[in-house]
Amino acid sequence: MKASAFSKLGQRTTDPAISWLMKMTLDHPHIISLAAGFTDDWSLPVEETRELLNELLASSTAARAALQYGSTLGDATLRRLTIERLRAQDRADVGGQYTPERAIITHGSQQLLYIVTECLCDSGDIILVEDPTYFVYLGIVQSHGLQCRGIPLEADGIDLIRLEHVLESLKRTGEIRRVKMLYLVSYFQNPSGVTTSYQKKVAALKLLRRYEKFAGHPIFLLEDAAYRELRFSGPEIPSALAEAKFQDRVIYAGTFSKPFATGIRVGYGLLPRALFDVAARVKGNHDFGTSNLLQQILATALQSRRYDAHLSVLQQRYQKKAKVLMRALQQHFPQAVEWRPAEGGLYIWARLARGGKSGPKSTLFETALARDVLYVPGELCYASDRTRPLPRNEMRLSFGGATDDEIREGIKRLGSVLRDCL
Amino acid sequence: MKASAFSKLGQRTTDPAISWLMKMTLDHPHIISLAAGFTDDWSLPVEETRELLNELLASSTAARAALQYGSTLGDATLRRLTIERLRAQDRADVGGQYTPERAIITHGSQQLLYIVTECLCDSGDIILVEDPTYFVYLGIVQSHGLQCRGIPLEADGIDLIRLEHVLESLKRTGEIRRVKMLYLVSYFQNPSGVTTSYQKKVAALKLLRRYEKFAGHPIFLLEDAAYRELRFSGPEIPSALAEAKFQDRVIYAGTFSKPFATGIRVGYGLLPRALFDVAARVKGNHDFGTSNLLQQILATALQSRRYDAHLSVLQQRYQKKAKVLMRALQQHFPQAVEWRPAEGGLYIWARLARGGKSGPKSTLFETALARDVLYVPGELCYASDRTRPLPRNEMRLSFGGATDDEIREGIKRLGSVLRDCL
Repeated sequence: MKASAFSKLGQRTTDPAISWLMKMTLDHPHIISLAAGFTDDWSLPVEETRELLNELLASSTAARAALQYGSTLGDATLRRLTIERLRAQDRADVGGQYTPERAIITHGSQQLLYIVTECLCDSGDIILVEDPTYFVYLGIVQSHGLQCRGIPLEADGIDLIRLEHVLESLKRTGEIRRVKMLYLVSYFQNPSGVTTSYQKKVAALKLLRRYEKFAGHPIFLLEDAAYRELRFSGPEIPSALAEAKFQDRVIYAGTFSKPFATGIRVGYGLLPRALFDVAARVKGNHDFGTSNLLQQILATALQSRRYDAHLSVLQQRYQKKAKVLMRALQQHFPQAVEWRPAEGGLYIWARLARGGKSGPKSTLFETALARDVLYVPGELCYASDRTRPLPRNEMRLSFGGATDDEIREGIKRLGSVLRDCL
Repeated sequence: MKASAFSKLGQRTTDPAISWLMKMTLDHPHIISLAAGFTDDWSLPVEETRELLNELLASSTAARAALQYGSTLGDATLRRLTIERLRAQDRADVGGQYTPERAIITHGSQQLLYIVTECLCDSGDIILVEDPTYFVYLGIVQSHGLQCRGIPLEADGIDLIRLEHVLESLKRTGEIRRVKMLYLVSYFQNPSGVTTSYQKKVAALKLLRRYEKFAGHPIFLLEDAAYRELRFSGPEIPSALAEAKFQDRVIYAGTFSKPFATGIRVGYGLLPRALFDVAARVKGNHDFGTSNLLQQILATALQSRRYDAHLSVLQQRYQKKAKVLMRALQQHFPQAVEWRPAEGGLYIWARLARGGKSGPKSTLFETALARDVLYVPGELCYASDRTRPLPRNEMRLSFGGATDDEIREGIKRLGSVLRDCL
């Protein structure tokens, strides 16, 4: 087929890094994967789901509602529960932003990221992202022909001085007109594990607003809170929604899948009013509404408190697995490798000493593969941005899908690979 | 918010007709809706789904697989079952097109339509559609800034002479280079109820191929078979896939939702090899795979034959409801209103005598609303195409969601409205 049968998007869209990682797993059937973003298999809510479904399907009125089409925006009860939950998490007593009218239910939060991006960005537009960032989001960015500017992460979120510097330099070149949003994975970030402080979110919003007059249009903060509920230590931090005066600039993406069951794909977005209508129309074009059965399962799980009961089990489980990983790192990794303790989420980010190479073609990666252990090379988690050098000495280690024994053995192997290669 | 915060797509996307129709329903709580595309509530598979889920969740290994992430392309078993089913329906013994490697599972077939369209079409590109056509697809078209050329429908599918005429005139103006595909809703079409004959599909494929040399690229046939399994009379007609020599030009979109439960959104596509990879990448960006639980429910339903058992109940149910509608039309509609007997699907298309007006602002529509009965004005089902006049004297009547009594009473009211207004 000649390329011209495809749209520009079709021609542009490359194979994502995740396909390559999955191929590695398939090609090495005995591999221990510390790469996969899967959640813990053992703790999936089998019993809870069976109970929920039997309850849901016991009343034929409720059952028929669950098995029929819903609406584009999503189930009214689930939208209300979503908002109530969010308001409680943000400890926000007031604020017009917490209304079901601004909530939309999606087929996983990934769909929300996709829809928001296509509603706001044309090819050539610029998104500010964290360095490193969620690599599946970079697939959306690549496909839509967007540019990125990476803002380095510190222990409590992006480096604000660097953010200002980047904005200022975009203002100087006139490219500020192409800047549409700042994308933050704000809780236990994938891949770095970093949580952004509330102060930094507000400061970032202020900075963005300051540059809007040069952009000529709003610049949004897209807060991806996918890992928020997978917190096992440290305080609850409010989302950017809590800052009421920026409520027309914050897009909040959340999910019920990771904290409950990833096979039940239900995410949601809370959107500024003006963007909401456009996103809702585009959602209508995508699928005119997320599967009603999935939404009813989650609404029932939330109402019956089974969701929270399960979540608390899950948090303890991940806390334990994170500890197993951290203990193994202390035991087997060279001292020169830096990493931070996990307080939630599924990942630990490890940084080799300067000059160490962890990339897909590095001796390290290939030796690890030969010894049947897989990690995500850190460089896959950086946006394409020629204005800064690409760090090549990092790795993402997941304690989500692997068992305790696999984590121990995997880190042990990786430790010996590190000693042999570096 | 200034418009320039949005992408071109975001700026372009208008509110779809369906929102307006839904608002009509909400504003008139006692209305009888012959407009909604809902399926029959009474026959939703409540018992079957409960059994399926208990079976599925009984084994904790199977349960955990169902509650965990799947893969972007979809569950391997479901993809294989989909292909086997399609091959049997097409009575195709051979043909490399029927391979699971070309099947992708989507969140309803609407998502497949969306992905295919964005992979192939840039703003300004041309899609050939049926006159009338599936109006929700027109939302995708509008949002992406595409042009349409409408090809009139005859009793057995599009008017081929008219198709050739349109292609020839696009060739003359050079616009043929913008033509990307022909979109056909080939079985019991929404809205007209028309089924396209196999001969016409093949003839259309030949015609398209003939014009490819002027286009400079492939022109695809997108066959939307959403209503295929809802057949209650007439012979099974093979899909365009059955014509092996055009297998690299046929995109087939199917669904398991309408024939089983619309609350369980699972659709699929069978794609030409070159398009498959691109569509799979874009699906990865949309949601990296359809909800695994939904897929497992359907795979189990297909394997246990519960799907087919339910389908046969459903077909009888719709046959009965179609008869109720047709009998009511005979009894209450003026002779001058033309309509064809339904052989499947959910719709009957009625055409008033020339000069009759059925549009959203017509006296007819408003009087019907005042008497609490709703239909879809036919003109909403026509693409924007200034090269032909827009028929304004038609209506889509659904026997899907309404009960037998509602159908009888609704048609009775509509009959009296017709007599009063025309």
